[in-house]
Amino acid sequence: MSAYVFDFSEGDASMRDLLGGKGAGLAEMTKLGLRVPPGFTITTEACRTVMTDGAVPDSLWQEVDDAITRLEATSGRTFGSGPTPLLVSVRSGAKFSMPGMMDTVLNLGINDDVVGALAAWSGDDHFAWDAYRRFVQMYGEVVLGIPEHHFQEVLTDLRASRHVDSDADLSAVDLAHATSRFRQIIASNGKTIPGDARSQLQGAVQAVFGSWNTRRARDYRRLHGISDDIGTAANVQMMVFGDLGADSGTGVCFTRDPSTGERRPYGDYLAQAQGEDVVAGIRDTSTLDDLATIHPNCHEELLGVMEGLERHFQDMCDIEFTIEHGTLWVLQTRAGKRTAPAAVRIAVEMANEGVIDRSEAVKRVDPASLEQLERPRIAASARGQALTAGIAASPGAATGRVVFEADRAVELAKAGEAVILVRPQTTPDDIHGMAAAKGILTSQGGKTSHAAVVARGMGKPAVTGVGAMFVEVAAGRASVGHHDFAEGDLITIDGTTGAVYAGAVALEEPKPIPELEVLLSWADEVRHLGVRANADTAEDAAIARWAGADGIGLARTEHRFLGERTVIVQRIILTPDGPDRRQALRDLQTQQVVDFETLLEAMDGLPVVVRLLDPPLHEFLPSRLELEQEMVRRVRLGRSIADLEHMSAQVARWEESNPMLGLRGVRLGLIVSDLYRMQVQAALEAVVRRRQAGGDPQLEIMIPLVGNPEELIRMKEMVTEEIAKIEGSTGQKLDVPMGTMIELPRAALVAGQLARHADFFSFGTNDLTQMTYGLSRDDAEASFLQKYLDDQIMATNPFQTLDREGVGRLIRVATREGKEANPELIVGVCGEHGGDPASIAFCREVGLDYVSASPPRVKVARLAAAQAELSGAASSTA
Amino acid sequence: MSAYVFDFSEGDASMRDLLGGKGAGLAEMTKLGLRVPPGFTITTEACRTVMTDGAVPDSLWQEVDDAITRLEATSGRTFGSGPTPLLVSVRSGAKFSMPGMMDTVLNLGINDDVVGALAAWSGDDHFAWDAYRRFVQMYGEVVLGIPEHHFQEVLTDLRASRHVDSDADLSAVDLAHATSRFRQIIASNGKTIPGDARSQLQGAVQAVFGSWNTRRARDYRRLHGISDDIGTAANVQMMVFGDLGADSGTGVCFTRDPSTGERRPYGDYLAQAQGEDVVAGIRDTSTLDDLATIHPNCHEELLGVMEGLERHFQDMCDIEFTIEHGTLWVLQTRAGKRTAPAAVRIAVEMANEGVIDRSEAVKRVDPASLEQLERPRIAASARGQALTAGIAASPGAATGRVVFEADRAVELAKAGEAVILVRPQTTPDDIHGMAAAKGILTSQGGKTSHAAVVARGMGKPAVTGVGAMFVEVAAGRASVGHHDFAEGDLITIDGTTGAVYAGAVALEEPKPIPELEVLLSWADEVRHLGVRANADTAEDAAIARWAGADGIGLARTEHRFLGERTVIVQRIILTPDGPDRRQALRDLQTQQVVDFETLLEAMDGLPVVVRLLDPPLHEFLPSRLELEQEMVRRVRLGRSIADLEHMSAQVARWEESNPMLGLRGVRLGLIVSDLYRMQVQAALEAVVRRRQAGGDPQLEIMIPLVGNPEELIRMKEMVTEEIAKIEGSTGQKLDVPMGTMIELPRAALVAGQLARHADFFSFGTNDLTQMTYGLSRDDAEASFLQKYLDDQIMATNPFQTLDREGVGRLIRVATREGKEANPELIVGVCGEHGGDPASIAFCREVGLDYVSASPPRVKVARLAAAQAELSGAASSTA
Repeated sequence: MSAYVFDFSEGDASMRDLLGGKGAGLAEMTKLGLRVPPGFTITTEACRTVMTDGAVPDSLWQEVDDAITRLEATSGRTFGSGPTPLLVSVRSGAKFSMPGMMDTVLNLGINDDVVGALAAWSGDDHFAWDAYRRFVQMYGEVVLGIPEHHFQEVLTDLRASRHVDSDADLSAVDLAHATSRFRQIIASNGKTIPGDARSQLQGAVQAVFGSWNTRRARDYRRLHGISDDIGTAANVQMMVFGDLGADSGTGVCFTRDPSTGERRPYGDYLAQAQGEDVVAGIRDTSTLDDLATIHPNCHEELLGVMEGLERHFQDMCDIEFTIEHGTLWVLQTRAGKRTAPAAVRIAVEMANEGVIDRSEAVKRVDPASLEQLERPRIAASARGQALTAGIAASPGAATGRVVFEADRAVELAKAGEAVILVRPQTTPDDIHGMAAAKGILTSQGGKTSHAAVVARGMGKPAVTGVGAMFVEVAAGRASVGHHDFAEGDLITIDGTTGAVYAGAVALEEPKPIPELEVLLSWADEVRHLGVRANADTAEDAAIARWAGADGIGLARTEHRFLGERTVIVQRIILTPDGPDRRQALRDLQTQQVVDFETLLEAMDGLPVVVRLLDPPLHEFLPSRLELEQEMVRRVRLGRSIADLEHMSAQVARWEESNPMLGLRGVRLGLIVSDLYRMQVQAALEAVVRRRQAGGDPQLEIMIPLVGNPEELIRMKEMVTEEIAKIEGSTGQKLDVPMGTMIELPRAALVAGQLARHADFFSFGTNDLTQMTYGLSRDDAEASFLQKYLDDQIMATNPFQTLDREGVGRLIRVATREGKEANPELIVGVCGEHGGDPASIAFCREVGLDYVSASPPRVKVARLAAAQAELSGAASSTA
Repeated sequence: MSAYVFDFSEGDASMRDLLGGKGAGLAEMTKLGLRVPPGFTITTEACRTVMTDGAVPDSLWQEVDDAITRLEATSGRTFGSGPTPLLVSVRSGAKFSMPGMMDTVLNLGINDDVVGALAAWSGDDHFAWDAYRRFVQMYGEVVLGIPEHHFQEVLTDLRASRHVDSDADLSAVDLAHATSRFRQIIASNGKTIPGDARSQLQGAVQAVFGSWNTRRARDYRRLHGISDDIGTAANVQMMVFGDLGADSGTGVCFTRDPSTGERRPYGDYLAQAQGEDVVAGIRDTSTLDDLATIHPNCHEELLGVMEGLERHFQDMCDIEFTIEHGTLWVLQTRAGKRTAPAAVRIAVEMANEGVIDRSEAVKRVDPASLEQLERPRIAASARGQALTAGIAASPGAATGRVVFEADRAVELAKAGEAVILVRPQTTPDDIHGMAAAKGILTSQGGKTSHAAVVARGMGKPAVTGVGAMFVEVAAGRASVGHHDFAEGDLITIDGTTGAVYAGAVALEEPKPIPELEVLLSWADEVRHLGVRANADTAEDAAIARWAGADGIGLARTEHRFLGERTVIVQRIILTPDGPDRRQALRDLQTQQVVDFETLLEAMDGLPVVVRLLDPPLHEFLPSRLELEQEMVRRVRLGRSIADLEHMSAQVARWEESNPMLGLRGVRLGLIVSDLYRMQVQAALEAVVRRRQAGGDPQLEIMIPLVGNPEELIRMKEMVTEEIAKIEGSTGQKLDVPMGTMIELPRAALVAGQLARHADFFSFGTNDLTQMTYGLSRDDAEASFLQKYLDDQIMATNPFQTLDREGVGRLIRVATREGKEANPELIVGVCGEHGGDPASIAFCREVGLDYVSASPPRVKVARLAAAQAELSGAASSTA
């Protein structure tokens, strides 16, 4: 066995480190006895030697030559000459799939002489010149780095002058002409393609190795924690041709239906064609049944291959094959892509068939995909052309009438219209409109924008960041290019793909997937991590319970302060203490009692964690800027502005330059303490009422934004006082656990002290991320976060997936020290990350007790928690 | 020896744990053979037993009785009866001095019978009844908890009806009447004073022990990390009387002049008086020289006592004494309070005299006090009455004309006037006015408000948070009660005490203190921690260098962007790329080259760390709110607002809801990258120019607000590129270290990774505190921080003194992991805390290499760094 080169017949799937992913896969199929075009892999070790020494190792080209000689013997073809020329493909293949590296050169080994031999061998000039043209173009682009557009311009000109639409319709002479032009272009760039096949091969292999060290590849590795030292392999494989005549063809097949998951072979076949043509959809493809008629032998052999591969890989396989002169060649196999419903069905059925066990079934389904299962989608039959696309911010599709303002959305929805709320972006002021709409569409913002986060929380489709769309709210108009939308126009959005359509597009209601509940029950058997829901209303709590939540991890009661109650809250904030203010407090308390009562009823018997008031006070107050703008308007109309001036002066008192770092949470509780006391009283009263009604309320009270133990101690005293009062007046014993959010870095750093005064911790990972990273979620996306992601300065959006190194380290420390100080401490997460699978894996790894997710993500979290349990040790090394 | 009670003659100074601080001191003086009134201490052990068992230990009262019996024998007086009654004082005394605990009851042991005996023994009815009156009042207040005002009302009525000003002028009969009224008040509160002396004593001792567990005392201990378990002692001591006739008196003396530090006895004596009368200043006191005439024997004895105590305690002593019938009694001694200049002189002279060593001298001076040494102060001769007082925000005194606006301050200053800038608060827009003023006065804000921080940085007196003052800038008026100030009125502020005076008050220029340089040179010999300065201008750099800075730790170049250059910066931000914008960049670069050149010149040969642009962009832009307000004004006048509307729309693009968490620092450097590149080019060009001029520029470049390594890597590439360019064009080799600020919690958490790409770290502790605590320095003081401090929810302001548990933990982790990853890494601090002695001690403890302080605090930092070195291990346990 040689040092740097392995024939496919020498390796297997276990040799990924040395052969790369692609090389190991080809070796495995060869080992299984499938008819794979022969070839060999130049190892990652060779690449590493090149990087270390700056030169190709002495023996490499000799080994490659020997391998080519073996390949010539195996294939019965000759490399670089006729009469039966051996053409090869050269492909890079690292251990991990990686963008930014050289991909593929096909048809290598061709030159001015070989093209003639190829034409003679095939009896097909067009085939031979097309192969040559493709080789020169690919080698020019990929190995020599000539910009693609130079070649495309030549082809465009040729097609125009020949009045044809497709390159395939060009004649052999045209293709010969194009090849000649391509070589001139390469020469005018100071480059040249070697005529000698072995030199071509050496050039391509060096390009593969060189591409390991491009800026883009290095940036990618740095950001994904892949070592620069592992290097890539290069695979050299004999070409087979599906376009050699009627007894040739190419196809793709799946061992089960990738759309529904049904257990039946499924595939496309295209006679007299190359692989790319199937994908390009130039001609209508045939089915596998058609293949049975055309090539019964090949068809039967293929069915055997499919069955064998599925059995071997224990998964639904996607197989690429080519038939060359009636002989079936298997080019590639991998786990087949499938729709979310298919993934669930396949996993459960395979487990029931005994092919895989239940744990494996649980691992097979992408938790994030569950979110779309119960939403409408664009019908498969729909033929609409998307107008534009934005960010797929919340899955599912919706059709409705365009509306630009939240109040208007509510009006039209009340009148029975389905509406889509279209805005530049949304703010907390739009929430009632979002609730009334079928879907949300914004021109700005990414996956963690307000619109995206709220829509996901509501389980509604949303498309955000549609850069091509210009929304003028005041003018009541939105435009995409020349297409204008006015209020009332129909529009359709697909939050699963980000597509936006003008008019109504046929939608499909989700079909029930009976296998889903089976899968989730298996997940529940596996997972130790609890899954609660973030729910502010009884409706949300009911949805969460139905989705299998173990309780409410976060009830943000202040969300109930917005809308109609804003006026009461303003009175409490702006009025000096006195009968008026006290009445407002009592009014709010009356309403809060009902809020809590219905919430506790919906979650009867399960824990309900009520977080006391958190957001900055100014969220309840009018914006001073808007007040001044209104003043400008009124002065122009000659009207009085005295009331606005008065309001502005009152509001100014509460103005903060950085509200996120301001008077919030427990700070507010200690400064405007009767507001907190009112909330506690209301929650306790709700417990008493639920008990009187025969219920089993499990209230827990959570204090937000605690930064030092003293804050928690004082709040706990207050809550304890209120509990004692109510116990005194009712004679009942109330057992209300009290805990704190950990959302300031300092809270995490003094968690050991906090734990002595808390029954539970809940990490508010949104805020913790904001503070740890010094990032404002409200601003960062627009100002620089998106660019950071685009430029790969950050690998992932830390508001979507928990930042392990920074925020995660704080969570780890706080959990450890909290539990050391108080072994009874229950620890959970209640930020956005509680519904993100990667973050859930981290939560399990650091020993949290539960995650709390938005109701539409409860099932996602159940499955992700089970997967985290199963991958266990593996994820802790990530 | 008994278990719970120690006579003074049985203890010494080493027994603070058991006897408390006061008891141990009394024992030590007794041991020295001084004539100390005899007595005994009930130990902290007794207090602990009371706390644990909830009751006084069985043997305690018996032991106390025995001690009283011994005291009767020693004193020749009898407790609770005549003919020579023994009266005692009862004082609490914990190991640490602690507010919130019971203080003192005097004259205990008196009752209706004893008062007669005391009158007979002293031959002075007035003396006897005054003693009785005082006892009933103090016992009522301190032991029984009757509010003081009840007693004061009786005395006020009495003085009025007798037409006298002082209680001392009331007759014995009046005092007897008052005593009787006091007892009625106590009875009407349901309380009673025991007649029996031993019962009085037991009540007082129990009150002392009980006071250990008051809410205030517990809060204090919790916040200062003092264990609740250590308990307090109670001291019982024979009363001696200085008001028994012409051969009696009382006084206070110092072993050196507490005002200048001169080595000569200094003191006050008051014949026929009690201790309180000296302090109250009711009568003019005599000097020690007068005492030599009145009581030559006592005077000589006192001089001996003074010399002995100073020698024993190796420090300037403050001694309280009483002469009772010609006999000198020493009541107390402690280290004497002294002015800052006196402290320096005494420390240096004592070291030169060989009384203490140099290290001890370095330890003796409060570093913070150095800040006032070189500032004017209110003359000792000045007799002005302060109008009001605020927070002593920056030391020193200043007189000048009131001015309300920054521009006006500049104008008047240019015209040669001394001005005091008076504002509700200051903002960055006022900096030029602050620079022009002699002092700053604000009605809002605390010690870390903008006004306070900037004034300290400038070395100017400031008084902030003058709650009694109402400033109306628009009206050009400030008022304190009925006193109005208009522009041009004279006002005087004392930033050392917080006092505000109407008109001019005589000031004293600081006298040079030759001992200071000696002391600092000793400090420099001791310290390992470097001391650099935060300086943005050549002037500040020169001041810092003169004060002994080892370099510049932070040059905030963007401070130079404010003022006249704002317009250029606005052009760069708001104009799309094009010739206009590029010209603006070049203009700014030209100016920056000069900025850097002069800075490097002033610090020639020493490191100058230039931080690239950090503040949020909007700081350079007009406020949208103000633009709208201006629009309202203009519309009212019928003028056009088109230009303002345009500006507002432009500015809106950069608007952020939380600028502190927004587009700042390296983020700006990566988004508006030519601005950063310009700064780097300017700094490098300055280096080249300085070298051409024969200088030795030591430029270092610092990247702010880094949160992940990728940011640092990319900026470093940019800087390296620019260095290569300039090296290429000049042929010179530039060695410019590059580092990063650690001001985001995440930066501290990934410091190990950052250190691999950095030559140095500098902790920006202001921002790090903001992020770690989730506190905006701009807002927090006004909204809740002050209340947190008042209510003892926080023990210290984290912007003044580094928060060890939170922020400090991050600093500790980042320093350790940074130095592990890169052993060459230099680590410093450049926030406000770099000039705070307590924070400096922490910096030394965690192994930092230097601190960087504002120029006026460089000497403070040198001394504090030396003290931190000396206290070494001690501080690491704090």
